[in-house]
Amino acid sequence: MAKRLIPLFNRVLVEKIVPPSKTNAGILLPEKSTKLNSGKVIATGPGTCSKDGKLIPVSVKEGDTVLLPEYGGSEVKLGDKEYHLYRDDDILGTLHD
Amino acid sequence: MAKRLIPLFNRVLVEKIVPPSKTNAGILLPEKSTKLNSGKVIATGPGTCSKDGKLIPVSVKEGDTVLLPEYGGSEVKLGDKEYHLYRDDDILGTLHD
Amino acid sequence: MAKRLIPLFNRVLVEKIVPPSKTNAGILLPEKSTKLNSGKVIATGPGTCSKDGKLIPVSVKEGDTVLLPEYGGSEVKLGDKEYHLYRDDDILGTLHD
Amino acid sequence: MAKRLIPLFNRVLVEKIVPPSKTNAGILLPEKSTKLNSGKVIATGPGTCSKDGKLIPVSVKEGDTVLLPEYGGSEVKLGDKEYHLYRDDDILGTLHD
Amino acid sequence: MAKRLIPLFNRVLVEKIVPPSKTNAGILLPEKSTKLNSGKVIATGPGTCSKDGKLIPVSVKEGDTVLLPEYGGSEVKLGDKEYHLYRDDDILGTLHD
Amino acid sequence: MAKRLIPLFNRVLVEKIVPPSKTNAGILLPEKSTKLNSGKVIATGPGTCSKDGKLIPVSVKEGDTVLLPEYGGSEVKLGDKEYHLYRDDDILGTLHD
Amino acid sequence: MAKRLIPLFNRVLVEKIVPPSKTNAGILLPEKSTKLNSGKVIATGPGTCSKDGKLIPVSVKEGDTVLLPEYGGSEVKLGDKEYHLYRDDDILGTLHD
Repeated sequence: MAKRLIPLFNRVLVEKIVPPSKTNAGILLPEKSTKLNSGKVIATGPGTCSKDGKLIPVSVKEGDTVLLPEYGGSEVKLGDKEYHLYRDDDILGTLHD
Repeated sequence: MAKRLIPLFNRVLVEKIVPPSKTNAGILLPEKSTKLNSGKVIATGPGTCSKDGKLIPVSVKEGDTVLLPEYGGSEVKLGDKEYHLYRDDDILGTLHD
Repeated sequence: MAKRLIPLFNRVLVEKIVPPSKTNAGILLPEKSTKLNSGKVIATGPGTCSKDGKLIPVSVKEGDTVLLPEYGGSEVKLGDKEYHLYRDDDILGTLHD
Repeated sequence: MAKRLIPLFNRVLVEKIVPPSKTNAGILLPEKSTKLNSGKVIATGPGTCSKDGKLIPVSVKEGDTVLLPEYGGSEVKLGDKEYHLYRDDDILGTLHD
Repeated sequence: MAKRLIPLFNRVLVEKIVPPSKTNAGILLPEKSTKLNSGKVIATGPGTCSKDGKLIPVSVKEGDTVLLPEYGGSEVKLGDKEYHLYRDDDILGTLHD
Repeated sequence: MAKRLIPLFNRVLVEKIVPPSKTNAGILLPEKSTKLNSGKVIATGPGTCSKDGKLIPVSVKEGDTVLLPEYGGSEVKLGDKEYHLYRDDDILGTLHD
Repeated sequence: MAKRLIPLFNRVLVEKIVPPSKTNAGILLPEKSTKLNSGKVIATGPGTCSKDGKLIPVSVKEGDTVLLPEYGGSEVKLGDKEYHLYRDDDILGTLHD
């Protein structure tokens, strides 16, 4: 059974959204149209302490769709699913329809 | 459909202004006269926290025309349009007519 | 007789959980299914001082199961058992069933 | 028409003073006598925030003649004129007759 | 006659505990069983000042048995005895029976 | 006519004291006896701001004879005289008869 | 005539104690017995300012015998005597009989 991970500090556990690389009919999509590097926030840490000891909460929350940086993040495997951990200030922004 | 991006922290989403590289009549313009690296601010983050936890707002706002540094910024593709993300302190200034 | 170690500052003494590399019946498990780098917290330091002298306690506690970074940590041998010391902000998160 | 640039933070827009490299009569001046790297302040940013959120204003003002460091500064072209942007703490001093 | 050293700031004077490399009967011990890098605290400095001028005392005290990092520390010779100086935040922890 | 330079921040304008390399009678002095790298303070900046916005004044004043570091400082030419600019915390000390 | 140096900030002027390399009778001493790198404090600066502008005094005083680091310190020649300048936090400790 997969374990549940609660990140520490300002870390954010993200499940990357894998864009479809071919259409339902099986036609391969050009790489360009699949480039957006986004993910879903699965869990967040409590935040980090400022220099005078106040907690600065994490700036994204569970369920957010986020834009991820091209590089960085640590791969984490829980059960048979693959996730990534990011510091919240490495996450570029939140995506909305 | 293109998603909307709300940047985190002091990040600024910019659409670069591509200067015309030839005149309406089709005459190529010399590179020198097209060099100004500017863009339009599409969206900004809420700002960053100072060391004692106060929010320092972003120093540009949506709609501003900004002068961009020669290097830096992360390319972001939303729908079929290309944008760039900058930290607000990497933006050199605002441009006015 | 093994000595007991009380870590200083925000250091955390961790005993790594070695995943079984073969089943009870002796069948070798593929490396992939054993990849999670986790450990049990054996002891923690008191925490570090913030810039204005307040103690920031360590964010994990004895008995926690933690997710460890791929690199880092100092190997420590107490008696004939092997442990690792991590700064608490290098620990990625806590694992729960 | 040239755009007007308002620098951000503690940036200073400077127009470099090009020393005459020959006399009115056309005699070339030796490089030594032309070495002073100075400029005129065209515009300044509002300043930067200190760690506790107070604004620290820029230490030079429009119209000041300033001594510039040998290296550094970003070239900016507005209309057909060339300017340079410096952080105010890179400017060495102000020049007075 | 050997001089006495009072360390400055958060420095700690340590006398390394050299583990026996052979038994009383003269049998060589394998290197593994002698690996623990520990020492006895001989003297400590008063501590360092925090950013707002408060003294942060050293986190170990005279007589403590400490676990030392594999690298670092400055060798000091007082009389014909050899000691090592460490910053207290380089010391990994205290050892107890 | 030479311009007057008022340094910014904690910069100090220094005129180096060139030690006589031969006696009045023309006898060359050995390099050793001329090694002291000193100068006279011509002008100082107002100082720098501390993190909470208080001005920290420059620690030397006009007319002081100062001991300069072997390396560092920016050469500045005003009129036909050569000066050097130093950050006040790069100046080693003041010299007194 | 030799000038007197008053160090700036937390600098400390030290006269190194050169250990006798041979006995009174002219017998060369082995290098090992002369290794302690110590000196006498000749003068100290007033100290450095903390981030909020309070003066942190120098932690050694004139006349102290100090243990010096193996590397570092700037050589200074005053008159025909050779001294060394150290930042007070580079000095390892004070030596007492």
